[in-house]
Amino acid sequence: MGESDDIIEHHVEEEMEKKGARSRGAPSSLLESPSPSDWEAPSSTQSSHRLLAFSDALISIIATVMILPVAHTKVEDNETSLLLLLQELRQSVQLLLTTKIAVYLMTFLIVTLAWAAHIRLFQVIVRIDDCLALLNLACMMLITFLPYTFSLMATFPENILGILLFCGCVMVIGLIQSVIVLYAFSRPFLLNEQIQISENQTFYKHHILKVIMRVPIMCFFASIFSFIFFQLSYVLLAIVIFLPYISQCLRWCRSKAIGQVEETPDSMLFYTYLPNEPLSKERVEAFSDGVYAIVATLLILDICEDNVPDLTVVQKQYGGSLIAALQDYGPEYLAYFGSFVTVGLLWFVHHSLFLHVTKATRFMGLLNTFSLAFVGGLPLAYQLTHEFPDNSRNELEAIQISCVIVFFAGIFQLAIWVVALYNEQETLHPYVWYDGREHVFMLAKLALYPCVALGTFFLTCILSKFSAPIFHLMEITVPFAFLLLRVLVRIGLALLRMIFCPNQHNLRRVVEEEADETRMPFNAVVT
Amino acid sequence: MGESDDIIEHHVEEEMEKKGARSRGAPSSLLESPSPSDWEAPSSTQSSHRLLAFSDALISIIATVMILPVAHTKVEDNETSLLLLLQELRQSVQLLLTTKIAVYLMTFLIVTLAWAAHIRLFQVIVRIDDCLALLNLACMMLITFLPYTFSLMATFPENILGILLFCGCVMVIGLIQSVIVLYAFSRPFLLNEQIQISENQTFYKHHILKVIMRVPIMCFFASIFSFIFFQLSYVLLAIVIFLPYISQCLRWCRSKAIGQVEETPDSMLFYTYLPNEPLSKERVEAFSDGVYAIVATLLILDICEDNVPDLTVVQKQYGGSLIAALQDYGPEYLAYFGSFVTVGLLWFVHHSLFLHVTKATRFMGLLNTFSLAFVGGLPLAYQLTHEFPDNSRNELEAIQISCVIVFFAGIFQLAIWVVALYNEQETLHPYVWYDGREHVFMLAKLALYPCVALGTFFLTCILSKFSAPIFHLMEITVPFAFLLLRVLVRIGLALLRMIFCPNQHNLRRVVEEEADETRMPFNAVVT
Repeated sequence: MGESDDIIEHHVEEEMEKKGARSRGAPSSLLESPSPSDWEAPSSTQSSHRLLAFSDALISIIATVMILPVAHTKVEDNETSLLLLLQELRQSVQLLLTTKIAVYLMTFLIVTLAWAAHIRLFQVIVRIDDCLALLNLACMMLITFLPYTFSLMATFPENILGILLFCGCVMVIGLIQSVIVLYAFSRPFLLNEQIQISENQTFYKHHILKVIMRVPIMCFFASIFSFIFFQLSYVLLAIVIFLPYISQCLRWCRSKAIGQVEETPDSMLFYTYLPNEPLSKERVEAFSDGVYAIVATLLILDICEDNVPDLTVVQKQYGGSLIAALQDYGPEYLAYFGSFVTVGLLWFVHHSLFLHVTKATRFMGLLNTFSLAFVGGLPLAYQLTHEFPDNSRNELEAIQISCVIVFFAGIFQLAIWVVALYNEQETLHPYVWYDGREHVFMLAKLALYPCVALGTFFLTCILSKFSAPIFHLMEITVPFAFLLLRVLVRIGLALLRMIFCPNQHNLRRVVEEEADETRMPFNAVVT
Repeated sequence: MGESDDIIEHHVEEEMEKKGARSRGAPSSLLESPSPSDWEAPSSTQSSHRLLAFSDALISIIATVMILPVAHTKVEDNETSLLLLLQELRQSVQLLLTTKIAVYLMTFLIVTLAWAAHIRLFQVIVRIDDCLALLNLACMMLITFLPYTFSLMATFPENILGILLFCGCVMVIGLIQSVIVLYAFSRPFLLNEQIQISENQTFYKHHILKVIMRVPIMCFFASIFSFIFFQLSYVLLAIVIFLPYISQCLRWCRSKAIGQVEETPDSMLFYTYLPNEPLSKERVEAFSDGVYAIVATLLILDICEDNVPDLTVVQKQYGGSLIAALQDYGPEYLAYFGSFVTVGLLWFVHHSLFLHVTKATRFMGLLNTFSLAFVGGLPLAYQLTHEFPDNSRNELEAIQISCVIVFFAGIFQLAIWVVALYNEQETLHPYVWYDGREHVFMLAKLALYPCVALGTFFLTCILSKFSAPIFHLMEITVPFAFLLLRVLVRIGLALLRMIFCPNQHNLRRVVEEEADETRMPFNAVVT
């Protein structure tokens, strides 16, 4: 609830300010000299809301489009494998899985780490001005460049240039973020209210700077070691990525060994690496929306680029018949609609889940990242499932890969739900608590995709010939399952009730009364 | 102000509901039978906020990525023109300008029209449930398919299949939207508060359905005429696109001829096509953010796909030296950073502008669409400016095209500002009113890019040899101009003051007092 409340307060505060400014009367004249303290006037400070939304959009897109090199490389592989007449997929897929996909997943992880750092920073700094906006844009530019330097590093692992570029990028990002922190602390009205009214601002400043500078300093050492013994650099970089988890483990071990070592309770609010550190729910949603939206559109982009037949080709190959030419693309349309439906419904499940989440924690954010990484893999699944001739062994494996991707995307969503249930009093809406009225329905929604994916996977193991169009048709029919779900859940509950509580009539009356009661507050709000 | 207030109320309302639900005590038991009226309980209705954000992201991405076929086709053209040894660009560019870019702009326009219809619909329906969310996803799927059918229609203008597909898509979208309207009016608690408390709900329903169904019906006739005389279909489709403007003109003419013909004032709130009809400012911002974000990332995507050298290529061509290989890509990095800075700063100007806008109108939305269409052209500019050998005639023309794109993107932003100023009492924050303290600074911000673009354009006309790296360096130095701008504006004002009001000392004192005064309310809010 905390995050969401904060945002509202924030909005309201902004509005109050605007109104205050308006009611203050006539604007001052053009030719008056603005004093230097003008910087501190509310007119030059702004709500950070839109800046953050834009940053979320940028980072989510850059994290996801890195699947395209994987998907497009695959197409070339396919062509050669088609020339060599099928069967070669197993090896090429294994090669693909070990290198390209690993690079994609690592890129996704690195970009989301940068995003998490960005969230932390702007949970401390809640208002911006022009200067901070420009600094943030510079930071964004380098973050979008990060995947390129990483793929350079992955392609030439033994060349130190890749390491140097990557470390350089990270160091500059760290420096810019430090400048942002220093700038914000020199203008305290930009800061979070809790820090603003706190007495030990300098303590906060040093703590935050220490946490921010940790990564660039590690990268600095990594770049120096790359001249001497470059394998060590990779070890250092791996430590950088898993640093929060390592420090978390160390702290946990220390607390077990020595006893509870409490830092000052103040510092626990920001830049802790505890798994239940709150994460801005709004930003998690915005980031997820970005990923789902770009994945859904990457599919149609491929269609628009590849599947508009050329005028001359149609005349030569199909005798001028456009319908004949488009019939060749039939499977691709089906694949497109199927994949869009899958992405759309995974978004829908995510949307339903976060509707009931009142507070997002860091651990839930991590699980969400994993889920999104698999969602980002869907364009690859799309490429695979329509590229192969019907009834080939390759098609079967392509469908299996799709199932695995969908399964993991769904299972991590389910994991978020399970984690949220562990602490349901704090993180979930009462409707979906363990015995809440929406609990079963939510569970059914979340379980639908993993179950369907698992079912399809085993079906492909049994049926040796499973054609992709049937798979895509199945994908398209899932939404009707969602519409039926509420009815099905209700029937299931009715059956359970019939078995366990035979005196249902009295119960029903009680429930109806209660339903009337619950409808009341809503109407009260509306009218 | 209205929109923004609405959103806050909306958030607060949602929160109140949640709290209400929580305070209502223990959740109901799992095994109770949910009555059919459960559909009406608040737990199944949701704030539409995130659904709209997701839709905005989808539509903005799909509108913008359509530049990629243009930009990528261009690359092939370039290669042939490089083979033919320069000079051929003029013709190929003219061909490009007349066909591909026209298709891109039309696609952008059509998609934004669909988006505008979506905004209108969800200004009436402010709450959603699962069923509406799924219907909306279906609608989104067809909207993302729209550009493909349009490009099919544009590639085969004489084949009726393209027309039929396009019209079919539009008709299905219209049908789904009608179903959404009917569904929402059958559950009035989903509707806008104004309609909910209004007595003539049926009048609203019929009015909205009439407006929504107008377009599909026209498309239905267009698809029928395509069998008889397909040119007529295009006329009909053109009418569909410009229908609001035509009906607006007709109404204006009628009002001039007969006198003021007022409809019932109630109906004026929604689905009017007046230029000052309010448009959700939040959604305009979200859509713009999406376009800017995707444009900024398309650039790095191209770099990631094309500019990671192959291991074998580096060994063969560059003797294993990665630095030498990357030096060949030097201009592309410069082009990337230059373009990112341009996109980032155009976003920054847009952000500053909409920070001061309190109410967005339909006409401002239209100008914003034009500005965004040119922003979407920036990846093309990027492709052009780094593809040509130095000091060629083609390079010069590429830079000129870039300047034209940046100029129009900036000038339409300026136009939004001018339109807002016309009605500044309603649409602008007092700080930027004609004699407000931020007025000159805002104007300077908005004028910077058009001026720089125009200056560069004329510079290229004078200097026959103008190299792209200098152009990109210029792009990168513009942000410093933004930082300097406040200082420059202040110096300019000081000079003006020295000329017009020599008794500056008194004035300065007054201003300082006033500045103190303005700082007060802000501090009051903070503490």
